[in-house]
Amino acid sequence: MRRALALAASPGVPTGPNPRVGCVLLDGQGRTIAEGWHRGAGSPHAEVDALRQAGEAARGATAVVTLEPCNHTGRTGPCSRALMASGVRRVVFAQRDPNPVAAGGASVLRAAGIEVEGGLLEDEARVVNREWTFAMDRGRPFVTWKFATTLDGRSAAADGTSRWVSSRAARLDTHRLRALCDTMLVGTNTVAVDDPLLTVRDADDQPLATQPLRAVMGERELDPGRRVFDSSAPSVHLRTRDPHEALKELFELDRQHVFLEGGPTLAAAFWQAGLVDEVVTYLAPMLLGSGRAAVADLGIGTIAEADHLLVTDVTVLEPLEPGDDTNVRITMTPKEPH
Amino acid sequence: MRRALALAASPGVPTGPNPRVGCVLLDGQGRTIAEGWHRGAGSPHAEVDALRQAGEAARGATAVVTLEPCNHTGRTGPCSRALMASGVRRVVFAQRDPNPVAAGGASVLRAAGIEVEGGLLEDEARVVNREWTFAMDRGRPFVTWKFATTLDGRSAAADGTSRWVSSRAARLDTHRLRALCDTMLVGTNTVAVDDPLLTVRDADDQPLATQPLRAVMGERELDPGRRVFDSSAPSVHLRTRDPHEALKELFELDRQHVFLEGGPTLAAAFWQAGLVDEVVTYLAPMLLGSGRAAVADLGIGTIAEADHLLVTDVTVLEPLEPGDDTNVRITMTPKEPH
Repeated sequence: MRRALALAASPGVPTGPNPRVGCVLLDGQGRTIAEGWHRGAGSPHAEVDALRQAGEAARGATAVVTLEPCNHTGRTGPCSRALMASGVRRVVFAQRDPNPVAAGGASVLRAAGIEVEGGLLEDEARVVNREWTFAMDRGRPFVTWKFATTLDGRSAAADGTSRWVSSRAARLDTHRLRALCDTMLVGTNTVAVDDPLLTVRDADDQPLATQPLRAVMGERELDPGRRVFDSSAPSVHLRTRDPHEALKELFELDRQHVFLEGGPTLAAAFWQAGLVDEVVTYLAPMLLGSGRAAVADLGIGTIAEADHLLVTDVTVLEPLEPGDDTNVRITMTPKEPH
Repeated sequence: MRRALALAASPGVPTGPNPRVGCVLLDGQGRTIAEGWHRGAGSPHAEVDALRQAGEAARGATAVVTLEPCNHTGRTGPCSRALMASGVRRVVFAQRDPNPVAAGGASVLRAAGIEVEGGLLEDEARVVNREWTFAMDRGRPFVTWKFATTLDGRSAAADGTSRWVSSRAARLDTHRLRALCDTMLVGTNTVAVDDPLLTVRDADDQPLATQPLRAVMGERELDPGRRVFDSSAPSVHLRTRDPHEALKELFELDRQHVFLEGGPTLAAAFWQAGLVDEVVTYLAPMLLGSGRAAVADLGIGTIAEADHLLVTDVTVLEPLEPGDDTNVRITMTPKEPH
């Protein structure tokens, strides 16, 4: 199973909408016959990938899979049927399929006389597809809120200038995190004022081949000539100011991981609605003393009402060029589901 | 010399006003005859400590000292004279004495026919007495400004409550840093409003045996019944609002390391005067969204004028009790002397 989990996490697999899955076929003596993994929507599922390589050798084998084999026909046929047809004798899987549409594979396999065991290293398997699992469990995308701030909580100086608070290393790191999400989300105000492109770019400032969806939310009409609506990546304008409604629409668009970057007011609305699942802060060792607050009013009046976060990672981002600042990236989750 | 530096840094030596010094006496074959170090004001200097142990064996020896032997009579006699009287043949020292009152030891020794070599591992020796060296070089104490802040740059909630922004681990760590300084400095306003005790306490909340001076600055008259003026530690009221003047007076009181904690307005005045040499920030993973800013207005209008800091250390302070926050301590120095 550890090998299957490693296969699931193979590099180069695009983010979403499908879960990352690995599969190892073993013979009666526990020797590996074939290995497979899913390479993203439209390509064969991990089980099919492994079965194709094994051919007739799969007969009587044990399939070790990181996720309960699916039982629905999407762009590819159901894996439960492929496993039955292959003559596999036993299936061991880690994570039960939380997707109501695809679930039920284990029962179908059992009914066909195949020995089935589930739940082995399930926690590890859930981590491999953290956002997908979250989205399937909760019926909405996982939300990562990212903001950059000076030491004293400012995102711009008194005159509104903010280029750059973050170091080059922090800006590159932000693009790396954007690439792990399937959706960038900003408010209409950010688009109207800042006109961001919202694409994911590499260290040479070139756009990546696969781009997240660029989602703009809010009721304000926007000039279709804004850069966010250009042809460099897909875009959508969600005509709502309600975070719940926006996430519902994004979930219906198969979105599982939203990167919330734009606008302190929008971020505050998500935070107050309890719809932020992860916070990533880039801290710049700068003092401004005045200027725009990085975080907007959250309706908190006294210290006992303060929202506390659980720190999951602290990483020092060393300067990439002489004279640049050292930034600190702090990753957190809300301490209590609020 | 490395051994002498290690002796200089021996634990248990009180902070200031004297530099930490170590001394090793070697015979003609490079074997150690005796070792000594200075244990704080009023006790023998390192050279004398080692010479006393060596007795007659010091004749013809080499004295390896971390600081140029002093040439003045304070509470103890000059080391240059003690070295001459001992019959030492050669003196090797690291740091040249930056103290104009005590300097000149090397010349006196040379004039007495002793072979003298200075500057060996001088940079390391300067680090051992960073604040003392700074104070002697610049004629004013080294200033460490400490502040605690939420993720969004707040030091108190909208209603003024602030107990506690920092975790218990951060509060204990602050006492550890206070103990490394010889002076705590706050403004009269902090004393009037918060009535802090400003003593250094251990993990059991008991005061340490040696306490820094508690200095309050500002022209406002203060109630002598305020806790800062009690008998638990020495106190002084500096009747000035000028940071330069306050540091001048503290230097005249033999102070070399000021811990600036109290009042964002006071801290801003020191910062704008270019009189902050180190910044220690305790970052609490909390969001308030409103409330008192941790850092006051610094007169900065645009991002290009922002003050950048050099990060010298980032330390994660894990919670000491369940439910407490992880805090992050970031230590910095101003990027350019301003």
